Amino acid sequence: MTTSTALLLADLTGVAVFAASGASAAVAKRLDLFGVVFVGFVAALGGGIFRDLVIDEVPPLAFADWRYAATAAVTAAAVFWLHPQLARLRTTVLVLDAAGLGLFTVTGTLKALDAQVPAVGACVIGMLTAIGGGLGRDLLTAEIPVVLRREIYAVAALVGSVVVAMLHALDRAEAGWLIAAAALVFGIRLVALRRRWSAPVATLRPPRGPGL
Amino acid sequence: MTTSTALLLADLTGVAVFAASGASAAVAKRLDLFGVVFVGFVAALGGGIFRDLVIDEVPPLAFADWRYAATAAVTAAAVFWLHPQLARLRTTVLVLDAAGLGLFTVTGTLKALDAQVPAVGACVIGMLTAIGGGLGRDLLTAEIPVVLRREIYAVAALVGSVVVAMLHALDRAEAGWLIAAAALVFGIRLVALRRRWSAPVATLRPPRGPGL
Amino acid sequence: MTTSTALLLADLTGVAVFAASGASAAVAKRLDLFGVVFVGFVAALGGGIFRDLVIDEVPPLAFADWRYAATAAVTAAAVFWLHPQLARLRTTVLVLDAAGLGLFTVTGTLKALDAQVPAVGACVIGMLTAIGGGLGRDLLTAEIPVVLRREIYAVAALVGSVVVAMLHALDRAEAGWLIAAAALVFGIRLVALRRRWSAPVATLRPPRGPGL
Repeated sequence: MTTSTALLLADLTGVAVFAASGASAAVAKRLDLFGVVFVGFVAALGGGIFRDLVIDEVPPLAFADWRYAATAAVTAAAVFWLHPQLARLRTTVLVLDAAGLGLFTVTGTLKALDAQVPAVGACVIGMLTAIGGGLGRDLLTAEIPVVLRREIYAVAALVGSVVVAMLHALDRAEAGWLIAAAALVFGIRLVALRRRWSAPVATLRPPRGPGL
Repeated sequence: MTTSTALLLADLTGVAVFAASGASAAVAKRLDLFGVVFVGFVAALGGGIFRDLVIDEVPPLAFADWRYAATAAVTAAAVFWLHPQLARLRTTVLVLDAAGLGLFTVTGTLKALDAQVPAVGACVIGMLTAIGGGLGRDLLTAEIPVVLRREIYAVAALVGSVVVAMLHALDRAEAGWLIAAAALVFGIRLVALRRRWSAPVATLRPPRGPGL
Repeated sequence: MTTSTALLLADLTGVAVFAASGASAAVAKRLDLFGVVFVGFVAALGGGIFRDLVIDEVPPLAFADWRYAATAAVTAAAVFWLHPQLARLRTTVLVLDAAGLGLFTVTGTLKALDAQVPAVGACVIGMLTAIGGGLGRDLLTAEIPVVLRREIYAVAALVGSVVVAMLHALDRAEAGWLIAAAALVFGIRLVALRRRWSAPVATLRPPRGPGL
């Protein structure tokens, strides 16, 4: 198996995992088959479409390579028909979702750096690639995006994208190090899930004084 | 009347119809005049702006040709002032909306194919062109997009875009066949409305057993 | 101080002000630190990212110049930690927000005209640059965008963008006139706030007749 085949397989795994998360949310909202496939498509490919638009890779990969859309659609349709069984797989899905987060962070940041985006911008683009699909999923299902509310999620992606930018600056963006960066995001996310870590929430002052 | 004049007229008809649907939704949400015009603009032109961004036709036609923005704005403003009368035209609006759906599907798919997007991606882009405005309208008015919930709508667009892609592959993308494809979308949508067809909805298992 | 330094400072001031408005909305929704920074980022830079995508300035300035993202992130984080004190600054924030509105309208319209977008399209793009961040902020916090509901806000931006387009057509787009255009938007917005001006809202007919 060549490197590019390995990368494609890894990429499509990420697409499938995020499609499954989007489809699950859509099923819970009682959307129809088309709605489930559509939300799955957005969750799986929305982040990458945004990334490709801002780095001027047009048409975006999601439209240029049919395997991306097909993977997302088939996965989402499978969730639609199989979801009662999938409920028992919740932990598996969370773990795969963390793996997808790591992967999309690394590929998104790298693609932006390769398109000559400066380091800070590339980190933001990498993070948005990883969390963009989840944002789209929550907007479509009329929720305040969960990524903005709960747990260490985007922060894990941001850490990973900074590591990738540093590797790139040191000219060490080799397969081994990149896999380590993806694994770092994956690990942070899993530990955060396990320990229920969250970013701090601002305290809103309660009304004070007697009688109020 | 030349072919391109006919195409422009057809396109602007689609813009007007979708602007009217967006403006109606905004009036129902008690938005002000500007809000009504803005939602009408998004409903009429949002799908096309997205299409032009992903096929790198910049600036998008909605900004490059003033007649598009003007048609959308004038129509939406007219709905704002005339809407009590329009309520009686609900059936007419639904029929025109179905016509717009067929038209935007065909032009969206064709433009993507002409921009060298592969067939599967072009079908998705064609469908998104047709349903994108309605999605934007519902996001702005804080609704779960109706296109994801009810009836055969996006599916009709998808069928039409596949037909256009097949015609293109067979080198038969001539006016007559394209009109037939638009008419097919129109027809599917009307029949779905008439018979209240819907895509299937996943069954959520009710709690079972006595006492629970 | 050179002109371009002055422009950059003015631009970054606008970014900071809009980031503060986004962060305040996110704090009120109980988002975590990351969510507050993210919504601040979208509010400050969303309009500009959209503008740069439609005029094909890629990567957008928000990603190409680290000072933009840094200003937005630092401001939003400051609001997160300082917000109880900021509550007393509400009037100040509204005034600064009006200043940002004027600034972004002028720079957005000018950039679109410089990118050869025709006048009508450039006005729409200028207005969207100015109001786009606020739209994104409200979508992320699951509100019907306030810009669509209340007061003269987008209309002030639209007036300013038309003035800029006219100056450009007359070849008088010089610093003095542009500042005047920004001041005009600022002034309209302040007067609207002061007098509680609003765009008209469509009347929904109440049910009529006795007993209903």
